[in-house]
This record gives sequence, C-alpha cells and structure tokens, in this order.
Amino acid sequence: MINVGVLGATGAVGQRFVQLLANHPWFQLTTLTASERSAGKPYGRIVNWRLDAPFPEAVADRIVSPTTVEAVKDLDIVFSALPADIAGTLEAEIAEAGVIVCSNASSHRMDPDVPLLIAEINPDHIGMIELQHDSGRDGCIVTNPNCSTIMLSSSLVPLLPKQIESVTVATLQAISGAGFDGIPGMAICDNVIPYIGSEEEKMESEPRKILGSFNGAEIEQADFSISASCNRVPVIDGHMLSVWVKAGCDLNEAKKAYAEWRAPFSGLPTQPEETLHIFEEPDRPQTRLDRNRGGGMTVSVGRIREGIRYTAMGHNTIRGAAGSSVLNAELLKTKGYI
Amino acid sequence: MINVGVLGATGAVGQRFVQLLANHPWFQLTTLTASERSAGKPYGRIVNWRLDAPFPEAVADRIVSPTTVEAVKDLDIVFSALPADIAGTLEAEIAEAGVIVCSNASSHRMDPDVPLLIAEINPDHIGMIELQHDSGRDGCIVTNPNCSTIMLSSSLVPLLPKQIESVTVATLQAISGAGFDGIPGMAICDNVIPYIGSEEEKMESEPRKILGSFNGAEIEQADFSISASCNRVPVIDGHMLSVWVKAGCDLNEAKKAYAEWRAPFSGLPTQPEETLHIFEEPDRPQTRLDRNRGGGMTVSVGRIREGIRYTAMGHNTIRGAAGSSVLNAELLKTKGYI
Amino acid sequence: MINVGVLGATGAVGQRFVQLLANHPWFQLTTLTASERSAGKPYGRIVNWRLDAPFPEAVADRIVSPTTVEAVKDLDIVFSALPADIAGTLEAEIAEAGVIVCSNASSHRMDPDVPLLIAEINPDHIGMIELQHDSGRDGCIVTNPNCSTIMLSSSLVPLLPKQIESVTVATLQAISGAGFDGIPGMAICDNVIPYIGSEEEKMESEPRKILGSFNGAEIEQADFSISASCNRVPVIDGHMLSVWVKAGCDLNEAKKAYAEWRAPFSGLPTQPEETLHIFEEPDRPQTRLDRNRGGGMTVSVGRIREGIRYTAMGHNTIRGAAGSSVLNAELLKTKGYI
Amino acid sequence: MINVGVLGATGAVGQRFVQLLANHPWFQLTTLTASERSAGKPYGRIVNWRLDAPFPEAVADRIVSPTTVEAVKDLDIVFSALPADIAGTLEAEIAEAGVIVCSNASSHRMDPDVPLLIAEINPDHIGMIELQHDSGRDGCIVTNPNCSTIMLSSSLVPLLPKQIESVTVATLQAISGAGFDGIPGMAICDNVIPYIGSEEEKMESEPRKILGSFNGAEIEQADFSISASCNRVPVIDGHMLSVWVKAGCDLNEAKKAYAEWRAPFSGLPTQPEETLHIFEEPDRPQTRLDRNRGGGMTVSVGRIREGIRYTAMGHNTIRGAAGSSVLNAELLKTKGYI
Repeated sequence: MINVGVLGATGAVGQRFVQLLANHPWFQLTTLTASERSAGKPYGRIVNWRLDAPFPEAVADRIVSPTTVEAVKDLDIVFSALPADIAGTLEAEIAEAGVIVCSNASSHRMDPDVPLLIAEINPDHIGMIELQHDSGRDGCIVTNPNCSTIMLSSSLVPLLPKQIESVTVATLQAISGAGFDGIPGMAICDNVIPYIGSEEEKMESEPRKILGSFNGAEIEQADFSISASCNRVPVIDGHMLSVWVKAGCDLNEAKKAYAEWRAPFSGLPTQPEETLHIFEEPDRPQTRLDRNRGGGMTVSVGRIREGIRYTAMGHNTIRGAAGSSVLNAELLKTKGYI
Repeated sequence: MINVGVLGATGAVGQRFVQLLANHPWFQLTTLTASERSAGKPYGRIVNWRLDAPFPEAVADRIVSPTTVEAVKDLDIVFSALPADIAGTLEAEIAEAGVIVCSNASSHRMDPDVPLLIAEINPDHIGMIELQHDSGRDGCIVTNPNCSTIMLSSSLVPLLPKQIESVTVATLQAISGAGFDGIPGMAICDNVIPYIGSEEEKMESEPRKILGSFNGAEIEQADFSISASCNRVPVIDGHMLSVWVKAGCDLNEAKKAYAEWRAPFSGLPTQPEETLHIFEEPDRPQTRLDRNRGGGMTVSVGRIREGIRYTAMGHNTIRGAAGSSVLNAELLKTKGYI
Repeated sequence: MINVGVLGATGAVGQRFVQLLANHPWFQLTTLTASERSAGKPYGRIVNWRLDAPFPEAVADRIVSPTTVEAVKDLDIVFSALPADIAGTLEAEIAEAGVIVCSNASSHRMDPDVPLLIAEINPDHIGMIELQHDSGRDGCIVTNPNCSTIMLSSSLVPLLPKQIESVTVATLQAISGAGFDGIPGMAICDNVIPYIGSEEEKMESEPRKILGSFNGAEIEQADFSISASCNRVPVIDGHMLSVWVKAGCDLNEAKKAYAEWRAPFSGLPTQPEETLHIFEEPDRPQTRLDRNRGGGMTVSVGRIREGIRYTAMGHNTIRGAAGSSVLNAELLKTKGYI
Repeated sequence: MINVGVLGATGAVGQRFVQLLANHPWFQLTTLTASERSAGKPYGRIVNWRLDAPFPEAVADRIVSPTTVEAVKDLDIVFSALPADIAGTLEAEIAEAGVIVCSNASSHRMDPDVPLLIAEINPDHIGMIELQHDSGRDGCIVTNPNCSTIMLSSSLVPLLPKQIESVTVATLQAISGAGFDGIPGMAICDNVIPYIGSEEEKMESEPRKILGSFNGAEIEQADFSISASCNRVPVIDGHMLSVWVKAGCDLNEAKKAYAEWRAPFSGLPTQPEETLHIFEEPDRPQTRLDRNRGGGMTVSVGRIREGIRYTAMGHNTIRGAAGSSVLNAELLKTKGYI
C-alpha cells in the first residue's frame, strides 16, 4: 500500500479527500493535518463532517497532525486542500523533502515546471515532473485546475483538433465552491451573485495551459482566447456552464467529435466509465440530477447546437477538486512515479 | 378616467397587472376576465393571490367576466395576460372592436404592423399603430417583448450608436417567468435547468425588431446577430443576464455611453426614475437585492468590462411583463392614442 | 427468484420502487405498469427519471404494462405506488387474484384485516394476513404507513413500554412528499406552507394502529392521543419532526430506552444497520446531512430532552414509502408468506 | 424633531433600524455608530447594504461615529442593534447619561426594572421606567423581546383572559434571524437545522414577563409553562410557529377571542392597521406571502383549531426586532417620556 495524507483535512475539499481516500484500493490514508488548534486530537472529534456522504468511521480515531513538513515527510503522497496563501511555500518545501504533492491549491498551477493535470485530458503533461527533478526537487508538485476550469477544459477537448479560435463561457456555480463558510445563506438564498473573485482570470488562463502541448521542455499554450463571466447560484454542488466555441468545423463535425471522443486510458480506481457523457435530451444536464454521474467524476455535456454552443456540468468538489486530484495520483502510480 | 380591463386576471402576470392598475392615477380597472368557470363570481373569491404584495381590496368584490370580446368591447384599453394559444385570435377581434390591446402575449409581437414596444427604448415604433388603422382596425394591438428580451434590449440601447456587430447572452432566469404552476418545486430546488422552451428563439429575434428603425411604413431590423443560452435558476423573481457585445467602440467609450444615456422622456406614472441603473460595485446587480429597484421597473447593469461584457438584471414580471405593458399604455395616452 | 411488479412506476414513489428493486437480491422486477397512454412502450422511453440516483439501465427496455389486474395476476408480489383514488378497488381485485400487494397507498391502511406494517416496529401484525385469507382472499394486501407516520411511529417505539399518554408533533416536510409535480416552485421557494391536506388526520390515527397490539383477531389500538401540525418546507427530501411525548418515565429512563432499543430482527436486504440512530450532538439530525443514513432507511432521533421532547428525521420516499414497502415484502418472505 | 441614533448600524437589525428611521415623521436620524474601523467614514461608503428595500440615500453621507457613550450622549433616543456581549455595559452607561435606550439586545430584557415591551401587547409595562428613574438613572432602557417571542406573545394575548395553562411551540425560523453572516449557505440550503442556540430558553422565559402584570413595583409573571422546539429553515425572512395552548376555553370561545381582540390604541406611525391578522384560509399564513403584511409589523394567525392549536407568523427583523423597537419609542413619546 502507498501511504498518503491530506493537508487541511477539515474543510470542504479536505473532507472530500478523506471521503474518497478512506477506502481507496491503492492508497492508505495515514495522516490528516489541520490547524495547530486541532492537532493532537482524534479526527472524528474535531471535524464537523458536513458532507451528505456518511462519515468514514475508519478514520474517526486517527490523531490529527499539524500542517507541517515534518508531519508528512515520510509519506509517498500528500493531497493538499490548503488555502492558496499557505500552500505556496509549504507545498514547495514538502516536495523538496521528497514527497509527491497532489494539490488542489492555485499557488503552483501556472509554474512552468508544474503539470496542471486532468488525467484523461492531458496525461502527457505528467512529463513536466522531470523538469522539477532536473532542478533538484526530490519529490514533485502536481496540480489540478480550478473547479470551473476542469469542466470547461474537459468539455473542450473533443473540439481541440478542430482549430478552436475563441471560447465564451458563462458559469452558474454552486455554493460549495466557496468552502463550507464561504457564502452566507442570506447572501445566496433566492439570489444570483454575478461575481466570483479571481474565477474569471483562472478560467481564461488555465485551460490554455491544460490544452497546450508539452514538448519535453515547456508548454506551448493553446492558441485561443477565452472570455468568462462567472455567476454564483443557489445550488449546493455542481457547476453548470453555457459555452460558445468558434472552431473550424460545422455542427455535425462537432457532434461527431463529441460522439467519438474517448479517454486515452481506462480502469483507474477513481476514473468514471465515461469522462464525458453526452446528453441528447433538450433539457439536460441538470445540476441536481446529473452531478453525481460516475460517482461525481463524469462531466456531462448537452445541448450541442449551432454556434457552436453547448452546456457542460460537473460536480465541483469531486471532479472539480478532490476527485481529480486523486485520479491524478492514480495516474502517477501507473506511470511509475511512485 | 380611462376604463381598462385585464384579460386573464388570475395568473402570475394577470395578478401583476391587477396590482399595478388597482390604484393607477389615470386608469380605472373596471373589468377582470378569467375562465368560464370563474366568471360571475367576485374576483376576491376566485383568485388565489400569490404575490407578496398585499391583495388590492378595492377589486375584491368586482364580478369576474368571461374572456370574450363582448366583455371588454366598451373599454378604452385591455391588458392581455392570456396564453399565446388563445391570445392570437381573441386579441385581434378585440382590436377590431375598437379597443386598444396592450398585450404581454407573444402571438402578435412579430406582426409587421404591430409595435413591439418598450416605452423608453423605441417610443417612435408607436407609429406602427397607424398601419393597423390604415388596414381598417378600429382599435389596435401594442405588444411588449418577452421578459428576457426586455432586459437585453434595454441594456443594449446605449451601445446602439456604436455599431453593434453581434451579441452573445446567457440567462439565469427566475421561476415566476413560467407562471405560478409552470415549474414544480421538485424540478428547480437545488437545481439549474439549462433549457427554456422557445426562449432562445425569442431572444434572438425580438431585439432586432425593437432596436430596428421604423421608417413610417415598416421596421428595418437592427443588423446584428444574437446567440442566446437560457437557464432556469432557483430564484423567485428577477432575470439575470451575462452579455457579450461586439461593437465598434472600446471599453471607455462603452462606459461613457452607459453613463450618458438617458430615457427620451420622463414622468409617466409607471416609469422609474432610472430606466437603466449602472452599478460600479464589482458584485452587483444581484437578483434579490436589486430586482425591486424603481418599483421593479429599473433594469440594472453592472460589471461593464473588456469584451465588451456586462451583467444586466431586472424584475421579470414587472419590467419584464405587466409593468412594461402598463407603461406602454401610458405612452399611448400621452401620444393622444386614447 | 420471486417475480415482482410495480404499479404506477413513473411517479415519485414508483421510481423509488424501481430504483430499489432493479438490483434486488431476492426479487426480480419483471413488470412495470403505468397509464394506458404509456403502456406498450419501453420504460426507458416513457419515464422522466427524476431521482438523483442513476437510472437503472437494466429496465430501460422493459415494455410497460397497463395498470390492470390482468397485467400482474401471475406475479408473486406487486408494489403499489398508485394514487388512493384508484388503489382502493384495484388493489383488492389484485389480492383476490392471488397476488401479494405491498401498498404505499392510503386506501386500505385502516382496514380491520390489513396490516399497517413497519417491519421492525410491529412485525407481529403480519398475522392479520390470515384474517384476509380466512375471508377468502387468495392473495393479500399489506400496507405501509404515511411517510410522516413512519418517522413518528418508529421514533415512539422505544417509549411504548413507558405508558405514553399523549403525543404532540409539528412536522417540517419535504417537497417530494407531494410527488414530482405536487408543489409548484413558486409556491415553496423561500416559503413555508403550514398545511398539508389530510396529513394531520393520518398522523393522528395511523400510529395508534401501528403501535397497537394484535391479539390474533383484531388490533387493540394504542391508548394515547396525538395532535399534529404539518408544515411544508423548501427541502427536496427528508421529513423532520419536533415531538413532545407525555409518558410515565423521566428523561433518564427515556434516554436509556432509546439507547437500548434494538430492532427485533436483522439482516433483511433492505434493512439498515440501525433502524433508529440516536444523535448526541445538539444540532442533529439535519435534513440534508442525515436523510441518506442507512441508505435512506434509518430514522434519526436527536435532542432528547426534558419534556420529553425530541427531534426525528427520515427520508420520506425511501424509509417513508418505497423502502419500507420493500422491507415489508422481505419480511413476508422470511415469514413464509411467499 | 426628536434626535435619534442607531448603535451598530451596519448589521442586519441595524440596517432595518436605518431603513425604518430614515424617513420617520417624528424622529430625526442624526447618529449612526459602528466599529472603530468604520468610524469617521460616510455611512454610504462603509455599509454593505443587504436589504431588498432601497438604500436610503439621505443618510449616505452621514459620518459614522464610534460606538461609545460620548457619541450618543446628546441624543434623545438611541436604538441598539448591538450584540449582547457589548450591549450589557454600554447600554447601561448610555442610560445613566440621560438617554433613552430602545434595545433589541437580550442583555437587559429580564432586568427587574426594565420593560420588555411590545407596544400593543403590554403597554402598561412602560411604567417600569419609573423604577429606573427611582434608582437614579437619568435616562432609561426599554427592551423589545426576542424575534420568536414577539410572534408567540402577540399571538397568545387574545387567549390571556381564558386562563392559559401551558403552551407548546415549534418554530420554523428564517435565516436573517442569525444576522447577515450567521448561517453559511452550505449549512441551510436544502436543509433544516433543528437547533438555535439559547432560542428555546428565551421563548420559555420572556413571554411570561411580557404577559405578566405590572403592579407598580414589580412584574408578576404569567402563570403558565412554555415548551419550545426551535428549527431553522431555508427562508430569508419570517418566523413561522406551530402553537398548542391549553386554556380554560373551548375552540369557539378561542376563535371569538381572536376575532374580537383589538390593540389598545392606534395611530402610531410604525403601528400596522392590524396588530394581529386572523386568516380563515386553511393554508395561511405563509412565510413569503404574508411576512410583509402591515409593512412587516402585522403578526398573522391562522388555522385556529381544536387543541387549541394555531399557526402564527411574522417578519422577524421588522415586527420581531427593529420595527417593534421603533414602535416602542413612539409609545414612549405619546406617554410623555420624551
């Protein structure tokens, strides 16, 4: 078994990591870190479990560690659900110490030697790890993109061979994307908030790295522009996107591309049967009905029509965060990095 | 006083008409029509009042009429909240009978001799009434646009002199847009539905008529394309739009155009102080906080930024339906049509 | 394998039956009935699947039958999700034809020879089936209680030996209890409706039968009064109850009774590990966090305090409807009735 | 004009005070206090206005004061929206300084010389102010009850002459009762939380003081017990109560008492036409439809039936907080205390 830990195990994404790792066939969840205040106490006592999935009793008695290099330096992998302000330095130090850091934080996503990885979408970017090793890092950092970016990038990939010129996207994002306490009930019930700090910037830059090509030395970014408008809506989980793509193909070719696209590999434990599910019904995907498809790991695409326009939707804390990070680690394992 | 009636006075838009007309300074609400089943009974007994505004007790004892030409033929104006399937024929017959029909139904919106009117946006289109008179109609039909179209068209008008090339718009629309019983609670709670029947078609055609120019004989449609994606979100009232406009101006010129735009007239009873309110705050307008601005008649615009992108929002059953229709009737009165 | 069918397989409870039976270890779901209009078509084509659990593809091609005696008379068991107005006659006819009818409809619940059964709560009432056989019925009808009644009766059972004198209960019930189209979104978003037709009457009568004793010939009803006030709240699934019980015990004895109560048997496929889960946390159970406990079959009880007061909560369409009905059928099987 | 101020003018209740006082016919809102950080800046710049009522532009440029005795000592009245932890000492000091403090904080509610006042319910308790003057206080403190208590006490008053023996009440309370940031969206969307800290204790003690009798020297508390269970539900504003009352009257006498009860005075600016509105419809009051009745100052009562049971509902931040406090101040004025 491969020993793994979770940095920041009590927050919204941290709890998802714990849920996904508690019974993982390859990974043994040995270490859970939290704030100084919680360290030394059993996880089951200090966590305020707020997922609707049942609490994994197996980790109830695990003693929580402080969030330090020392606490995780003997692990094979740590999954990071840290906020960006502390992730930057700490993740780098942990990677120096020889650990593989699979991070959901934004701090290192755009680093020139760090893969911004969605396992089925750009698996060859994993080679960027060598750049880190070359520069003397014993371990490495592998990041997954922002939640909305994952839905957008995954849904764009079938059109990539068709010469994408520009992408326009409006989002309808769930409350959980801001963390458990991120958005007051008074602020979001019966309301739409047409603004999410830094989200549009991430959506406009990250996909160009993800969908770019890695030549062994650096990423050549994908050559199209993205314009995003992000909205918060009163749903618990699931980010919905209205997307317009200008590309060098007509609607039928686009539909064919979606129908024929297949993930480049299969069978990893966290990987869904379908990375993309294509709906033919006029009113799907819907957030509540479809967010749990593929255990929350499938991105649903529907309403592909003239424009080229379509709707994409996925679970923001599973496919959009912890689930993608775990899947990335599984890919690392199959590629021999662990 | 001018005698007016409401066709279909018990539905979501019908109740808004009754609310707005019950204490109108110019119009006396004498006639309320409903289905055959309700006719002959007092309005207060048959209506299931579901607005959060208080029920106007003044009309409680008004005896409901059947929805027929006969019932309204002696009125000056009737406001129509009928469904499209019966509005088509009946509104035409009522207009033949000499009555002015201000209609929220879609049936006649695109008729070549019927104004598709937003009072402050295209007031000169009122002249199309003459075309109806010329063809022998004693009364006339004046329509207001679809609810989302009103928000879009109103928010586009300051950019009209800047050569609009194309418009891309994603909507986040309220439940009330589908009527009181239109969307089950099970279908919309904690959910987004990325489809509203016929809505995108209306949004892609109606604004080109509204923002077109009337040369005395016909409308020359505005010469730009529109691409719309419509979503239903779990809010009660208020349609939010994420809009992209390609136009022949830069961001500063666009902002200046919004800052300087003024409604071409003022002072009508239902007219808000601001037809458009321009927000500088990064996170406004918000649906619940801003939908009642100007008594629900102000369209709020915010986040004008590179793209050119902006957010627009307005109350869908007031500015987007009954309120705009009443305001149109007020304009007709000041122009001498009544 | 035991051949089973579902009467009314397209509604909210019907779909739950299909979900729970599609992969059942003992029961083979061979027959799905629906309205005349849908009969003859594949289930996957006519059902508008609206559960957030994935659609069971195994039944997609099953041809839907009309809802008639003929269609189900060769089955071992039919589960009925019919509305009360047609359930009354039809269920009796199907039972005459030799089939075991496990019904969620209210029509026969209070019949003197029909068990109103919650498998772990009053399993001996199953003996009432003999009364039906004695009167010449080849099959039989077994009913499960109303959804709120199931939560109330299950949560009261540990106190039953303590001489319950009276029960006062206020409910906070989910939208799904009214069926998919039962409550318009406009009626329930940001709202509480303090009325549910016939619900209080059911809650005040059914528990006295369920918690009564069966002497082999008839039910001696439990000897306490119940006063209920039912409210609809904007949650999708899960009925919450605030309960007061006057009983011949103090708080400590009550807590002990809850701590020590155990289901009288275990191990049926649909039975949860815990029929009742007792929370010690001050703010649990919560609807969204706890409704899926035990696969939706566990009733959660918390805040047991002076009064004696407590809070109870359970999933209304699983434990409160289809799940309890399937569990009843499993009990019938182990008791040799099938 | 009477000069007034608001202590803690930026929170949920503070903003309501500002809204209600900005155009008050008797009171001139001259002073707004907030935290040290905000003092010295214009109110319009530091407040994050989150009511759906429009921001009162008249106070936009008012310079915010620190929350100190010094800042308000020359006012006639200060309205306090302070949290309990700082209200205790500061309100007493302000009263010593000669100012009338109308407080929504819980700190002094149960003080033996402080009226716990609902203007139309126990106006004679205003005489307790003399006790404060007797003990050397130049000004005085007048408190209004907890939000849920106001709905309960107001709805009980018609039954008071009927010998109330005991009261049982379950609440369904709005999010705004916890303040703007009190409850995360993740915690309350699609959820019920069956616990509100200290709320049940307040509901079980405060009404007995309010509905007690003042003999000129002290309050003789009302002689009945109250048992409360408090639940938080996903609605923005409006607290709903399911109430059971054991009293020495039958249902008809109770209904007659409600029909005949009238407020002991009328005509104060903030007083609604009806302190209590009695609904006959089976499904009213409803939270969203009825919370704004009487400008948010009317408590609605419905479903009076055997038990004696009824449903009561009112706007928690208007009638349940700021509005009741302003009305109390108006009563003080008419009684000559200002």
